Amino acid sequence: MKFSCTQENLNRALNRVSKTTKKDANLPVLGNILFEVKENKLKLSATDLEIGVEGFVFGKAEKEGTITIPSDLITSYISSLPNSNVVLELSKKTLNVKCGSFKGSIRGIDASEFPIIPKVKREISLKINSTDLVHAFSQVILASAVDESRPEICGVFFNLEKNNLTLAATDSYCLAEKKIKLGKRVKIESRSVIIPTKTIQELIRVAQDTVSDVEISLSDSQVVFSFDGFILSSRLVEGKYPDYGAIIPSSSKTEVLLKKEDFLNIIKVVSLFSKGSASDILFNIDAKKKKMLISAQTAQVGENESRIKLDKIKGKNNKISFNYRYVLDGLSVIDNDEILFGITSEAAPGIFRGTEDDSYVYIIMPIQK
Amino acid sequence: MKFSCTQENLNRALNRVSKTTKKDANLPVLGNILFEVKENKLKLSATDLEIGVEGFVFGKAEKEGTITIPSDLITSYISSLPNSNVVLELSKKTLNVKCGSFKGSIRGIDASEFPIIPKVKREISLKINSTDLVHAFSQVILASAVDESRPEICGVFFNLEKNNLTLAATDSYCLAEKKIKLGKRVKIESRSVIIPTKTIQELIRVAQDTVSDVEISLSDSQVVFSFDGFILSSRLVEGKYPDYGAIIPSSSKTEVLLKKEDFLNIIKVVSLFSKGSASDILFNIDAKKKKMLISAQTAQVGENESRIKLDKIKGKNNKISFNYRYVLDGLSVIDNDEILFGITSEAAPGIFRGTEDDSYVYIIMPIQK
Repeated sequence: MKFSCTQENLNRALNRVSKTTKKDANLPVLGNILFEVKENKLKLSATDLEIGVEGFVFGKAEKEGTITIPSDLITSYISSLPNSNVVLELSKKTLNVKCGSFKGSIRGIDASEFPIIPKVKREISLKINSTDLVHAFSQVILASAVDESRPEICGVFFNLEKNNLTLAATDSYCLAEKKIKLGKRVKIESRSVIIPTKTIQELIRVAQDTVSDVEISLSDSQVVFSFDGFILSSRLVEGKYPDYGAIIPSSSKTEVLLKKEDFLNIIKVVSLFSKGSASDILFNIDAKKKKMLISAQTAQVGENESRIKLDKIKGKNNKISFNYRYVLDGLSVIDNDEILFGITSEAAPGIFRGTEDDSYVYIIMPIQK
Repeated sequence: MKFSCTQENLNRALNRVSKTTKKDANLPVLGNILFEVKENKLKLSATDLEIGVEGFVFGKAEKEGTITIPSDLITSYISSLPNSNVVLELSKKTLNVKCGSFKGSIRGIDASEFPIIPKVKREISLKINSTDLVHAFSQVILASAVDESRPEICGVFFNLEKNNLTLAATDSYCLAEKKIKLGKRVKIESRSVIIPTKTIQELIRVAQDTVSDVEISLSDSQVVFSFDGFILSSRLVEGKYPDYGAIIPSSSKTEVLLKKEDFLNIIKVVSLFSKGSASDILFNIDAKKKKMLISAQTAQVGENESRIKLDKIKGKNNKISFNYRYVLDGLSVIDNDEILFGITSEAAPGIFRGTEDDSYVYIIMPIQK
């Protein structure tokens, strides 16, 4: 194997595949990246046995060949090299790297030990602008669960109906839902699947630096994201996603409009006094006096209260307690400067959404005392 | 106790004293800051029983009084408040804080439980510009030891001789020495003491944001740094500092001049291949070919080599191995863009200094195989 390319291209491809590796004492090859040189292309592959990634680097292939190389070392090494031409040459199981005044040799593991990443039968396929997709996934992923006893909620619900895509996630304490209108007319069947949270995290990480469209292909058990010479494939989560629709309130007894930044800052300050397991803060709306008191208290520590003047309010007096972390999470992914906050009762879910965006909604279950 | 002041002043003073506290289940008051209102001043004190700090805030005192308040909570709380007037008012053992739309109450511990910070008899006193002092301490502190079996090197050697101040630190693998000419004629006796590393770290942290002179006072067992309404006092380290002078080479058999940034970058890249306990990299100078090879290798991982062309070289062929971390540390605190690197033999200490600065020298002991 002998291949040369620019440091920049190799570095970008390595950064995309390098995290999908696994430290496994029984199967050390999972910590490696598979290098395959064929037809003027270098193909890089990595897998943790749940997710598989493949990236391509264009360059000059003088000799075909394959080897696997430790991901951490090759990735840090290539990223530290000057932006110049890199020559990779295999000598037995050692990969020799030359670039500028640097000469490195890295011991590898034979490619035959690398697991085969299964090819996916692509039954359904659609394309979405990468920025829109990354943004939409980022808005919902924060609500997904990490509770391994309920695998069906440890992922993002991905629901296609004609030209409408709905993404949702919940950990049963909060819920986020995002609707996307698919602009491009693609022939799409209706289909709903659950994509593992880790797969979405990887996709967000690598798709952040592209402007291409992302092609999403689905089979019964797998999903594939491809863009820009990069392929990420993953198993789907088995099981039925909870029917969450009934949780989203269609209207609220009390609705206020708030400046997002001011509201966020107040919650951060008040939450300093919310210690321990519940982490709750109380929102108390006085409709007549047009103000909201936000307060927290912990015995032995102290208490804290702040007052917001409400210019825009509809409905009656109301109050509700939330875990403040859920509020901070939700507010951080709503894009609008002004947000709508709706309460129905101390026992019913509260709702947050941007005042200029119907596509996203964030729900929090109250803490009842 | 009732006191009002600006959020900005209170925040600055809290940040200066807040870190000198100690989480101690047996003596929880050490995690608190002592608040004392007297004569239109609020005095804040904190101690971990080795270091004591005092800061003053000017404002309006309506009622004198004292209380101790948990450091973490009051510091985060005040720093999050808007830049407005803050009113502190004690009610039994609870400190009530009002600022803008915020009202907080924090439970405290009675001031009588707070340890007394001893007053220091100031025998010798000198003044140094804070920027110069912080810079000088930062250049040497990185070499101080953390080995508790040899307390005398777990500090910075502080040696006054007439108008010359010498600071030094060593962990017996590397050594840093800085000389300062005291411009201001102060009546100073000769005296040498060892200041604990932690005290210097605290001083660097708090003195970074001042432009005032720092007054340093010494007694037999204590040192006091004062500036800008802030006082830091600390015990000194007992014992005799090693007589390190003989380790500093007066000349080297081989001397090269190097661009600091290039040299740093190369060491970072080469060191990726230096794994395990020794962490050594080899510097091999070819005087005739005017080049230096820098290399590292670890069996099972691989090896790496880079070449530097030497424009300025004096002396003979030479080579030496260092733990690369010491080299990175030393280079990072040398201010000059060009550095002098001197080697005498594989077994003798190597020397680094800036080409335009005689006041600082950094020595590394070689790794011999």
